[in-house]
Order: sequence, then C-alpha cells, then structure tokens
Amino acid sequence: MAESNNNSPATEAARVIEGKNVYFFGGGQADGDGTFRELLGGKGANLAEMSRIGLPVPAGFTISTEVCTYYYDNGRTLPATLDDEVKENLGKIEETMGKKFGDVNNPLLLSVRSGARDSMPGMMDTILNLGINDEVVAGLAAKTGNERFAYDSYRRFLQMYGEVVMGVEQYEDEHHDPFEAIIDAACEKRGVAVDTGLTGEDLKGIVEAFKALIKERTGNDFPQDPMTQLWGAVKAVFTSWNNDRAKVYRRKYGIPAEWGTAVNVQAMVFGNSGQTSGTGVAFTRDPASGENVFYGEYLVDAQGEDVVAGVRTPKPVAEMVNDLPKSYEELLEVRQKLENHFKDVQDLEFTVEDGKLYILQTRNGKRTGLAAVHIAIDMVNEGLIQKEDAIRRIPAEDLEHMLAPIFDAKAEREANKIGKGLPAGPGAACGRIYFHAPDAVAAAARGEKVVLTRVETSPEDLRGMIAAEGILTSRGGVSSHAALVARQMGKICVCGAAEVEIDYANATVKAGGVTIKEGEYISINGTTGDIYAGEIKTAPSRVVQGLIQGDAEAMSHDDYKKFAQLISWADELRKLNVRTNSDSPEQVKNAIAFGAEGIGLTRTEHMFFEGDRIDAVREMILADSENARREAVAKLLPYQKEDFVGIFTALEGRPGTIRLLDPPLHEFLPHTKEQQLDLANKMGIQVEEIMRRVAELHEFNPMLGHRGCRLGIVFPEITEMQARAILEAAAEVDGAKPEIMVPLVGFKKELDLQKEVIDTVAGEVREKYGLTEDQLAYTVGTMIEVPRAALTANEIAETAEFFSFGTNDLTQTCLGMSRDDAGGFLNEYQEQEIVTTNPFASLDQTGVGQLVEMGVEKGRSTRPGLKVGICGEHGGDPNSVKFCHKAGLDYVSCSPFRIPIAKLAAAQAALAEKEGK
Amino acid sequence: MAESNNNSPATEAARVIEGKNVYFFGGGQADGDGTFRELLGGKGANLAEMSRIGLPVPAGFTISTEVCTYYYDNGRTLPATLDDEVKENLGKIEETMGKKFGDVNNPLLLSVRSGARDSMPGMMDTILNLGINDEVVAGLAAKTGNERFAYDSYRRFLQMYGEVVMGVEQYEDEHHDPFEAIIDAACEKRGVAVDTGLTGEDLKGIVEAFKALIKERTGNDFPQDPMTQLWGAVKAVFTSWNNDRAKVYRRKYGIPAEWGTAVNVQAMVFGNSGQTSGTGVAFTRDPASGENVFYGEYLVDAQGEDVVAGVRTPKPVAEMVNDLPKSYEELLEVRQKLENHFKDVQDLEFTVEDGKLYILQTRNGKRTGLAAVHIAIDMVNEGLIQKEDAIRRIPAEDLEHMLAPIFDAKAEREANKIGKGLPAGPGAACGRIYFHAPDAVAAAARGEKVVLTRVETSPEDLRGMIAAEGILTSRGGVSSHAALVARQMGKICVCGAAEVEIDYANATVKAGGVTIKEGEYISINGTTGDIYAGEIKTAPSRVVQGLIQGDAEAMSHDDYKKFAQLISWADELRKLNVRTNSDSPEQVKNAIAFGAEGIGLTRTEHMFFEGDRIDAVREMILADSENARREAVAKLLPYQKEDFVGIFTALEGRPGTIRLLDPPLHEFLPHTKEQQLDLANKMGIQVEEIMRRVAELHEFNPMLGHRGCRLGIVFPEITEMQARAILEAAAEVDGAKPEIMVPLVGFKKELDLQKEVIDTVAGEVREKYGLTEDQLAYTVGTMIEVPRAALTANEIAETAEFFSFGTNDLTQTCLGMSRDDAGGFLNEYQEQEIVTTNPFASLDQTGVGQLVEMGVEKGRSTRPGLKVGICGEHGGDPNSVKFCHKAGLDYVSCSPFRIPIAKLAAAQAALAEKEGK
Repeated sequence: MAESNNNSPATEAARVIEGKNVYFFGGGQADGDGTFRELLGGKGANLAEMSRIGLPVPAGFTISTEVCTYYYDNGRTLPATLDDEVKENLGKIEETMGKKFGDVNNPLLLSVRSGARDSMPGMMDTILNLGINDEVVAGLAAKTGNERFAYDSYRRFLQMYGEVVMGVEQYEDEHHDPFEAIIDAACEKRGVAVDTGLTGEDLKGIVEAFKALIKERTGNDFPQDPMTQLWGAVKAVFTSWNNDRAKVYRRKYGIPAEWGTAVNVQAMVFGNSGQTSGTGVAFTRDPASGENVFYGEYLVDAQGEDVVAGVRTPKPVAEMVNDLPKSYEELLEVRQKLENHFKDVQDLEFTVEDGKLYILQTRNGKRTGLAAVHIAIDMVNEGLIQKEDAIRRIPAEDLEHMLAPIFDAKAEREANKIGKGLPAGPGAACGRIYFHAPDAVAAAARGEKVVLTRVETSPEDLRGMIAAEGILTSRGGVSSHAALVARQMGKICVCGAAEVEIDYANATVKAGGVTIKEGEYISINGTTGDIYAGEIKTAPSRVVQGLIQGDAEAMSHDDYKKFAQLISWADELRKLNVRTNSDSPEQVKNAIAFGAEGIGLTRTEHMFFEGDRIDAVREMILADSENARREAVAKLLPYQKEDFVGIFTALEGRPGTIRLLDPPLHEFLPHTKEQQLDLANKMGIQVEEIMRRVAELHEFNPMLGHRGCRLGIVFPEITEMQARAILEAAAEVDGAKPEIMVPLVGFKKELDLQKEVIDTVAGEVREKYGLTEDQLAYTVGTMIEVPRAALTANEIAETAEFFSFGTNDLTQTCLGMSRDDAGGFLNEYQEQEIVTTNPFASLDQTGVGQLVEMGVEKGRSTRPGLKVGICGEHGGDPNSVKFCHKAGLDYVSCSPFRIPIAKLAAAQAALAEKEGK
Repeated sequence: MAESNNNSPATEAARVIEGKNVYFFGGGQADGDGTFRELLGGKGANLAEMSRIGLPVPAGFTISTEVCTYYYDNGRTLPATLDDEVKENLGKIEETMGKKFGDVNNPLLLSVRSGARDSMPGMMDTILNLGINDEVVAGLAAKTGNERFAYDSYRRFLQMYGEVVMGVEQYEDEHHDPFEAIIDAACEKRGVAVDTGLTGEDLKGIVEAFKALIKERTGNDFPQDPMTQLWGAVKAVFTSWNNDRAKVYRRKYGIPAEWGTAVNVQAMVFGNSGQTSGTGVAFTRDPASGENVFYGEYLVDAQGEDVVAGVRTPKPVAEMVNDLPKSYEELLEVRQKLENHFKDVQDLEFTVEDGKLYILQTRNGKRTGLAAVHIAIDMVNEGLIQKEDAIRRIPAEDLEHMLAPIFDAKAEREANKIGKGLPAGPGAACGRIYFHAPDAVAAAARGEKVVLTRVETSPEDLRGMIAAEGILTSRGGVSSHAALVARQMGKICVCGAAEVEIDYANATVKAGGVTIKEGEYISINGTTGDIYAGEIKTAPSRVVQGLIQGDAEAMSHDDYKKFAQLISWADELRKLNVRTNSDSPEQVKNAIAFGAEGIGLTRTEHMFFEGDRIDAVREMILADSENARREAVAKLLPYQKEDFVGIFTALEGRPGTIRLLDPPLHEFLPHTKEQQLDLANKMGIQVEEIMRRVAELHEFNPMLGHRGCRLGIVFPEITEMQARAILEAAAEVDGAKPEIMVPLVGFKKELDLQKEVIDTVAGEVREKYGLTEDQLAYTVGTMIEVPRAALTANEIAETAEFFSFGTNDLTQTCLGMSRDDAGGFLNEYQEQEIVTTNPFASLDQTGVGQLVEMGVEKGRSTRPGLKVGICGEHGGDPNSVKFCHKAGLDYVSCSPFRIPIAKLAAAQAALAEKEGK
C-alpha cells in the first residue's frame, strides 16, 4: 500500500497523533490515509484514502483500534476523552453533509460499522440508519415527502439495534427471527410476497410492533436519544470483535485477537429513497474467474444489506446503464480511478441517493485462487504492477485451487444437468446434500462429502460451509454472503440458482424435474454454474494435465500458461530448493513434473506392503535368531533394490534422500485373530507364536518406542540390507546421488554405529562393481526429529553429512502431543486460542521453531555448510516454508502437489528478506 | 590425592613429559607419582607413589593410558618409539633387581597387569611369570635349587599366556577348562587332591602337555623369546580393555571407554618359593563393617592369584605373626605409613619372598556403604581428615545400604540357622537359590528374588551377581572375588562358608543337616555371616527405626549416630533444599522424619483409587454433560479436601506443592470385560456405554495424549474442584503453604486459563472463610515436562510463580523415548555404549540437562528469583542432584528414602562448587 501512495511517504507511527482516538474523513480530505490500516482498520483507512483522492465518500469518522484494545483492557469501558472527540467530529460530519444529528427537520442518519486491519466480512455487527427516533422519523417523512422510506428506515434500524445492541434473540421454539415474523405477518395481512409491497402505514404498525417486541424481550425501552443510540452501537461493534463467528474466522485466517477492530461512523445515504436511488456492490474485475470485466450487482430502491444478504436477487451491474445511466458512467470512472490508485482489484460498495453517486467503501477484493493468479499475471502484463508484486500478492496456499480436480469432460457431458446458477467459486464438487450447517458438519465428521445446499447462507452457516466440499444456493447474487465466503475460502460454489427449488421442510431439492433427497448426491461446477444430479467422475485440473501428462490442449489453456509463468518467476526469485516426499518411481516422476529438485524423503517401509513383500517382512519380524532374520531380510533385498533403481532412474541425476526403516515392527504384523490365523497357515507355524510376538511387540507409546534407528541398532542386518539395496541400485544407475538418512537419531553414537554399517556395505558394493569412492559416492545424514537431536546437533553433525528436520515427530515430542490423539482437545485449544493454528499443519515457530533454529546453528558450528532441509508435512505449508527460509535451510520437501505452493512461498520469503522483513 | 602429597605441588599436566610413554618406578624413586592417575592408571600412580615414599615395591614401569588410546585409534598398533622406551626401562628394572630378563642363570621374571584410572578389579587380563621359557626354567630351577617352584611358575605362565594372549578356550562340549583338566588328570594319577601335592617331575609333564595343548588349539607354538612374550602380553592387556566383562563393569560404574588402561610391567617376586615365602592381601581397616582393625588374609608358599581366586581358603592376616613374624611386623608398619600418607583405607597386596617383604600394590580400599560411613566419621574423629573430606568421600548412593532392611530380630532368633560364613557384605537377604549366573539372571527377570550360591565366583558370574539379592560362597576369603565385588556393589554377601556343601550336579545345598534345592529359599545375614534355611521376616534398618519410629535402642546404635552426624554435616554444607514426593499424610510424616523440607510433588490422582472414591471418579468420566460431570466431581471434593487437610497438618508449616489431575482419564476405567460388567451393574447403566467410553478414550500414545492440564482446559470443573479442596483445606490448617502445580503446560495460555479458574475459586474460598489475601495465600506454578515449556519458559514464567522440572516426562519427550517401552532396546543401548547410564535413572545432562538450564535461565529472565525445583525421579539420584545444584535450582524433590542421599549429594555439589569444580 505504501508503495502505491507516494504522496504520503511518512510512516504511520510518525503521523499518528498522540492521544487522538477519532479520525475524520469526507469532503475531499481526511485525518488518516490508506496506510493507517493498523490504527483505523482496512475500511477506515480506505475511506480516508478514498476521500483524499476525491471519491464521493459520505463524510464520517473512524474510532481507532486502540480504543478497542482499551475497551477490552479496561473492563469494557471507553476512554474518558472519547466523548468530546466524537462530538467534535460529529459536528464536522454535520457541516460537510449539511444535515444535523437528531434534528427533526433535517436529520443526519449514521451507519456504524466494524473494520479490522484485515477484512472479516459479515463477522462483526453493523448498525444502519442510526439517529432515527419517533420524532425524527416524522420529520424525515415530511422533509423527503416519502413516509414509506422514513418508516422503512426506522424499522430497519429498530431491527438491527434490537438484535445487535439490545440483544433480542430468536427463542429456541421459534421458527423465525421474531422481527421477520412481524414483517411476514404484515405481508400476509397485506397480501404481498415481500416487504416492498407494504405501505407506509403498514410500516408504522411494524415500527410500533418492533418497539413493543424490544421492550418485551429485553425489559428496556428502545432509546429515543440519538447520542445514546450512537454509544450503544459503538460498544456493540467492539463487543462483536469477540463473538463466536469472529473467533472462528480469526482462527481460520490466523488473525490475532490483539489487533482489535476500529469503528466507522459515517453519514447514511439512502439507496432506498425511490426509483432514482439504488445500491450495489462491485468488483473492478471478476473475483471468481479473474477476467478483466466490471463485475457486480445492484438493486434499485434498496439499502446495501439487501444486496449482500441475498434476500432479493440483484441485477448485474451492467444493467445500471438502463436504470441509472448517469451514475453508471460515474461508476465506470471510479472503477478506473480505483485500480490506477490501488493497483489491485477493488471491491466497492456504492449507493445512489436521488441520482447522486456515493462510494461507501472500497477494499482489495477477495478472489479465488484461480482469479488471484489470472489477475496478478494480467496486471503485470498491463504494466500496472511488477512481477515481484504478483509473487507477493498471490496467497501461496491458493495455488491449490488451480491443482484441484475438475469434472471429467466426457462424464460431465453425459451427466444429468438439472439447472444452472452463478459461478461463484470455480472447481468441481460432488457431495451429499445437507441443508443445515450442523448436519453438514456432522456428515463431514463421518467422512462424507457434503454439498451444503441452502436458499441463502448467513454467517451462522460458516462452520457448515467450512465442512462442505461445495456450496449451492438458490437465492443471492455473486456478491451474496455465500459467494463472498466461498470465494475467500476457495470453496466451490454455485449461487443464486433460482430454478432450483429447495424445500427445507421435506428436505428435498427439486430441479429439472428431478427430486434429490437429503443425503443423496449432487454435483456442481463452480466454474460454469452448472448443476447435476448424482456423482460425476473427476479429472485432473488443466494445470495438472499439462504438467503431468504434457497434454497439449491443457498446456495451451490460459490457466496452465499463467500458472507456468508464475512458477517461473518464483523459480527466479526463490533461494530455497524444493524437493519432494515420494516413495515410488511413479510418484517421483510426477513430483519432478511438478518441479521437484530432488527427493527430500523416501519412506522405504512404504514399499514393504506391496505384493508378496509383506510375507518376507513378517518372516523377518517373526525370526527367532539373527540367522533366521538374515535369511528373511535377504529375500527383501531384490525388491528394495528394484525400487531404488526405479527411483534413481526417475530422478535423472537429482539427489535422493532415502530414509532407513522407521516404524515399529508391530505395524507390519496382522492384529485381528483372522489375519493372524491366515498368516500362521501361510507360514506353517502356530498362531500362538504370532500372537505371542504381536503381544511382545505391543508398546504403550509406539511413537516413542522401538522404532527409527533403534531398529537398525538392535537389528543391524536390516540396515545392512537396506544400505546394500540403495548402493547397488546407485551403482547400476548413472548419476544416482544417494543420501542415506538414519531416522530418529538422538545420540551421535547411534549415527556412528549405523554409518559404520553403511560404510562397510559401501566398501563391499564398490568392490563388487569395481567402482572407486568417487564413482560410487553417497552421503549419510539424519532426521532431526527428537528435541535431543536439535540440542546436541553440534555433536551429531560431526558424523552427519546432512540434516533433515522431521517436523511431524519433532512437533509431537516438543509439544508432548500425539497427532493421533490430539483430536480430543485440539479443537478446544483452537476455540480457546491456546494455539492459533494446528501445529501439525503449520509449524509452531515459537516452540518447535526454536529447535529448528538451534539445530541449524549448532549443526553448522561443527560442520560449516552442513546441508539442511525439512521433510515434515510443514514443508508444504507456506508460513512454515517462509520460516524455513529465515532459518537458513537449504531446501524444503513436500508432497508433489504442494511443490508449486512451496516454491511460491519460498519466492515470497526471498522477497520479504530483500525488503528487510 | 594432591592434598595428601604436599611434596609434589605441580599439576600432572605440567609434569607429563612430552612424547614419554613409559614411566619407571622402584628403588625408592619413580618417574611419576600418585597424582598421575589419568596417565598411569590408579595402580601405576600408586606404585610410583609407594616407591617415592620408600615402600619396598618390586621395580617396574608403566606404559601410559595414552598408548591405549593410540592402540585403539590406530587399528590396534603401538607407537613406533615404544620399543626403545620399553627396552631402556627394562634395563633399569634389571639393574634395580639385580636380575636379567631372559637370562638363564639369573632370570628376571615379569608381571604384566592392567590399571585403569579407576580400579576395575578382575575385569581385565593379567599375566604373571613372564620371561620363562624352556631354557630359563631349567636355569631357574638350578639357581633356586627348587625344580618344583620353577616348573610350577612355568606352567602357571603357560596357562595364563595360553588363555589370555593366544586365545585357548574351553570348547562347548568340555566340562572343564582344558588346562585345569590336564592338572586334574595329573593329580588323579599322582593320587593327590590339589596341585600342591604334585612333584617337579609331574609339573614338567604338565608343562609339555600345556605347550602341546596351545599348539593344538591355536596352531601356533608358544613363543620362547621373552621379548615376544612381553609384547604379546602388553597387547593382550590393551585388548582386554574392551572385553565383555570390562564393558559391563564400565557401564555399571559409568566409566568412559575413552579413559583406556595403562599397563604395569613389574619384576615378579615369588610368594611360592617355599615355606619362608607367602602372599596376601590386606585392608588397613575392615572394608565390610568399617571397624578400625587390620584386616586381610594370606597363604604361605603361594602366588597372589591363589588368594584372590578363592581356590584355597587363606588364613586371616593376624596369623602371620606365627608363620612369618618378621614380615608381619614390617607389614604393620606399612599399614600405618599408608594410612598416614594416603589418609584413606588402603587395599594392599604383599608378597614375602624368602623372608623379604614386598608391597605389590596399594589403592584406596573399596568398602561397603556401611563401612564408608563408619570409616569416614572415625577418620574425622581421629583427626586424619576434615568433615568436608568425609562428605566428599562417601558415595551418596551408598547411604541406601544403611537404610536397607535388616532381619527382624525375633524372626532371626527363631529361624533355622544352618551355618555361618565370613560376613563380606552387610545386610539381610532372602531369596531362591540359583547356582549359575544365567539362571540367576533369568529368575530375577521373572521377578524372583535370588541368592546366587556358588562354591566360588569368578568374573564370569558378574551378571548373575548383579541380578541377585545376595551372594553365598562356600570357598574363598573376604578378599575373594565374591567378597570384593559384593562389597563394591553393595550386595549382601556371606563367603567362604566351608560347612555349606554345594552340589552343582544335584542342584542342592546341604548344611546343618538341611538340604535346600535350587529354587527354594535361603536367608543370609551379611553383617554376621549367619545362614538360614527358608525366608526370614525383615525389619527396618537401625537408621530407619531411629528416624521413623524414634526407637531409643536404634538411636543409641553407632550406625544411627554416625548416619545422623553425617547428615547434620551435609545440612550445614548444602545449598539445595530437599523436598519429598509424597501422596499421603503418612508418607509426608515419614519424609519429614527423613529430613524433608516440604513437598515437591503430591500426585492428587493417587488418592482417586482409595476406597469408594474410584466410583465417583468413574461417574465423572462417564458423565455425558457438564452438569452430570459437575455432580460427580462434587462427590470427590470432601475426599480430596480431607487428604489435603491431612497433608498440610503433617507438613507443619512447610510448603507443599500439589499437582492437579495428570493422567489420562482411561487409566481410571476398567479394561477387562468382567470389570466393565461389574461397573455397569454398580452404576445401573449398559455395559456398552462403558465399552464405548473406554474405546473413545483409547489413545495411541497416551503419554502424549489428553492428560495434564489438557484435562483441566477441557473440563475446568475438575480443576475447580481440586482448587477448592486444596484451598479450603489450607483455610482450615494453620500455616498451610499451598503451591498449586498445573501439569504438562506447553503454552503460557494454558496456565493463564487454569490460573484464572484457581484464582476465581480462591476468591470464593476467602469469602466463605472470611480470610484476606494474606491470610489465605497460595502460589500457582507449573511442571516443566515438555520441551516446549523449557523453550518458552520466559513466556510461561510471566504467569508461573514457580517451576518444577518433571524430568521423567521431559526425558521421554526430549529423547522421544517411552520409559515403558524402552526395555526393547535400552539394554542394547547400554551394551553398545550409546548411553552410559539409564537416562530415566540418572539425568541425561547433555540433552535433557540443556532444557533444564534453558528453563531456569529463561524463566528467571522474566521473573527474577523464580523458585525452581525438580520432582522427577532424578531428584534422588546423586549425579542428577549435583547437576541441579549447578543449574541453580532451589530444591530437589524425591521419595522419602532418597532424601538423605539427595542431601549428601547436595552437600558434595556445594563443596565441589567451592573448590571451583
């Protein structure tokens, strides 16, 4: 942002005015500007910025996030000086807008909205039309000559204020929101479908009914004093920072609770004051596909909430040329001005009041992963931004959306298409229909794939939306809640499919003559908006088809080309190497197609389960003497060698880290009585023998048991066989670069002993193949996966030629937390904000991170230039990749599909470093 | 040692001569002295020292331990310069002794012995009579006029050399050592019982048979060249540093493999050259009881090996006054000279050759724990040493021997006494008889108590001796192998019980008319030497009787008085506080009797199993709602409170750290079908419900699962109840000092949340009892038991008012090693010297120790003066206690019986610190 705002070079900290809590904007000027995000929140900073660049913003002021912090630090009270500041700035609004707060003849109405540093759409509370009371409403009616408008505004205000500030709730035995119930009753009485059919007189009745409802439910009268209303609303916004929805959202997006929200108080303008008025939301480009078209929707004679809530299906913004032609022209100019100024896609809200256009807010538009890539590359091509900006701007995680499967073209053609909606979240989703969020969550927990299917969604549905594969709504446009959230989470979404009839009562969906019951399959194509009955076979995405299959059609597709462009930029910029965790030649080939620069982890035991091999493995485990074990192990040698030949061949000269046997032996034995009998018959031994051995190998805490190099120490013949298989394979494949990795080392001596075994075998293999040390070179290194290894890395590095951080196990041991068992409390831990993210998904930088840094530093203290990588699952997590860059690792290793993500994250880390971040 | 040798103030390092590998001693002078232990080993340094102080030591030289290191670092070869050095020093011996190596007319014979920095008796190989060959033997016979002596020496040499240097072994199908078989055959032929009955002619035949045996078994001729013999023997001694016995010994005593052994080459003197000759071993005081009497044994006309091996039962040293009166007088002078010089009990070997006394070696005498205390206190009283020396000198661990049970006096009087032997290792042992070490090991592994019962023991029996409760031999004196090893390991031992008839073939023991079969019980009193059939009831030791029961008779006993004296000195000197891990009022009372200064750990869950409480606990676990859980938890409150009232009362104003619920809940549920049915009936619910909950609570790695504060976070009502029980109890007991400890914290926020619950309860309790904050004070702290807690100790200490290192779990997580599962490989790890001691018994200072140091440092960085302790089992391990002192802990906490040990170790640590160690 700072970069795009050359007029304001000073830093925010320098310009924040000591003791100032309230910042004015409007009338072509502002106290703050776009760089004040921390203090004013994203919305407040942008309102200030918009005002500064001359956009028609209704005047207002922002109460800073510092006040939010104060509010929570001081038992939910506000600073004493705030009262004066608010009054002073309220005066400025009155002056700018030419209206007066609480004035019966020329009333100023206000909106009160939250605004955190990062946008959290729909998560916190908003109050509109604040300032109306029984007298003002009459004056408003008189002044505008529109009683209906006045009372409609009042009833909207009462409803919001009643719910948000005064705490009117829907009782458990009620089917509807009690306010909505009153409106529904009035509509029924009047014989109209929606509230736009109600008269001013009807609305007067509703206003009285609303006030009575508030009194009845809360025991308090609705406050008639506008200043009382204002303070109530401000506190409610601060309070909503800690509501459940906001907490869930913060957890998902890693937003710290300490940031707090700002409060924006702004003059209301009325899109609902007749046919020359209207309101809408728009994106400067298509946020779903990324296409460079003006994109949005509006409603005539409506307030903003009507558009977003999806209650009335709005019209595409292009049609404004007919309804409000002058305002549309102005809007197109605003679009250009915004993109040129902010250098990014803007998501703006506008209102036309009696033919005058107001821009209510603008912010960087949330977009799908697909759109993010398209927009960024396009903007580079348009000369609007640099390739570094493009790299910085695309959330690495979002690349996953370009790799997600799409529907198989033939299968989709043959499928039973039952309808079409707006394509709001690209991709292909199949799943069982559920209508209510809790059911969707429960079904997903059972392992079902779910398509959450609703008339419209609201913030209450958030958990269900997170749990679902895809989201389908029958009402609401591409800017509706469903579309917005889906976009942001990368959910596949089709919305506003009006022809789809959703019947909650009977738990069915009817469309295209087909009835689908709850729990039955539906398929949605979020790229086209098409809806199908049943399941449709999926196919790899175009990017994947291009990369893996080299499919010419896929490679000529814009998706593929832009993706490839992005990765090539990332490759130029990044310093970290990116390797793959792959266990078979096939996987290695795919990983290399994805851009892997070698293998960071091959788990040799994965090969033990293929075909007949498991028999030899079991024989090995059941052997009761070293000799018997040697015989069994010898049978495995040819299999393992064949695997390694395949892997080294696929690597085409790239380095390959191969880990020796790691899991506890009991994992290879059968555990049910039946399987044990089977095995006994096969081996011609007593089943009791097998049961005895299984019992003998049982461990209380297998994670901390007889596994890793502890196996190789007690049974060196296993290490011997694996070393032989690796080295003979290397001897037979030109350019093979084996890196033999000894797992679970905690003591230098463990590695010494295992290296001795490997070196001895190497001597024998060299002799057998007549190769010199140079001709058959290899390195021996270790996983750093228990804290002791990191703590004694200086000792271990005397022997180890490389380190690879096994952060899965390192997290388990550092935190004393079993990944398999954490389910019982980790949710609660996230709820209570003990952890901000799942430490098994994103590296715990504060704790485990210290061990990584210590391991690197100590390791290189005795072996300068020690090669260090990471092969835990964190290697594919963008934040963790950035940490690895900072910690000075040489490479990260991850599963093939995460490679592009890791590369992008690595490039971002390199850029951040350059910028001194 | 340096302290007692004021003539040699220079340090060893300064006086070691660069490039010098061989150090001469003899004729009243020496190249080294008593401070050269690292370089010359204990034996070599003492020989040098003895020579310097004018004791009659046969001349010799020591090859330094550096040569041993060279030997192993250079593929078992010796330095090139060694040859010249050995020849030069050999010349000096020849000059001093007036004999010539390899000379037929006046031959010098040599002994070649190992000698490590710390004595490892019997663990490594020794060669005597080196230098004899077919010609020398004849010359020796001619010169001494004693053909029998000459050939006896030769056959002894051949036997040792054949076994040790040339590797002649007993075949598996042989019942005897093949050399012994030849002697036995000769005895049989001659019709004599032992070899002393054989003639010179017989021995000549044996010599020829021995040479033939060596040729047959090894394919090589016995080397006739004395220099070849010498080099073979030197290498054999170095090689024996890594034999199995030596490794086992080093592991047990924590001696590093890197130390290496020196080789002592010394002129032979012959105790077996007739009736005016003899040999013996002696202690300057009784090493079993500590009594200040000259103590030892000798044999006339014998070599040293005969005494130690226990083949012939030697005479008490006092009887020498009759056999060799002049030498005895000289020996008593030597005794005095040695104690005055070395200020400690000396263990010496002597030989009389034709009436001339030689001292072959001296060293600090190994002694039992009982003797160690008595000797040290006596020496302080005699003015020989200071109390600080006494503290330094007694191995803290050895105090355990003074606390071990003795036989109940009445039960012992009534028991069936069947014999008596020499009291070689004090204490009372009952156990099943086993005759062979492997059987003893196997029985002990099955959980049986074992008394290893043998005619005599040899180093091969070591593992069996370690496994046994006690050791009984029918042959060998108090200086025999059995007695020596038993003494050193604190084993209860009765030896040389000649009237006990041990029949290996029939696996029986006959004594006092009773026959005891293998596997049946025997009881031995190592303090008196008495042997009993069957089991005898034991009673607490006199020290324990005095401390716990305040028994007047026990308190007047010398054992008690010296123990109390020692502990009072330790209390003066130590800086660390010593607390106890105790879970009940009774345990706390005992711990305070043992000197505890508070509680370091009370495990609240231990109380859950008493009486009916477990029912309420189970109800709590099976509860399906918070309310139901609250009801169940409420039932536990009165029980817990009662416990805490008892504990605070017993503490009499000392601080008490109480840990909140720690183990995973499933530990409280029944796991067999039967028990589950029982519980279901009792609770009136379906057994399926219980099975479901058990399955639900099952964890893959419970150690890393839902336990510790993770329980209190998810079920705060449990924390609430426990806090209430603790604080209400504290409110009711005057002077109670509760320290509430939250377990398994890894994140500061966990502790914050739990502290909030505790503080809220505290407010309620204060209100209930009408107490101010000062009147009901408490602190809240945490266990540091996962690495993350140590790594983020600075954050955690912002909330925690104290830390207690839970080193049991911290070891498990730091090493990634489950204590319950390590059995499968930890033995192998000790065998292979990956770990020197069991890390669960003695703190892994290199790894886990870093976390402890880090935790202390980081914790005090944010909370200066933070109180820090340790409550893992390491708190009672002397080495760990010393580490805790160095790391700056405030206290250690251990089980009641370990308290005196911890105190002594703490005093030793304080002394070491004073001395800058």
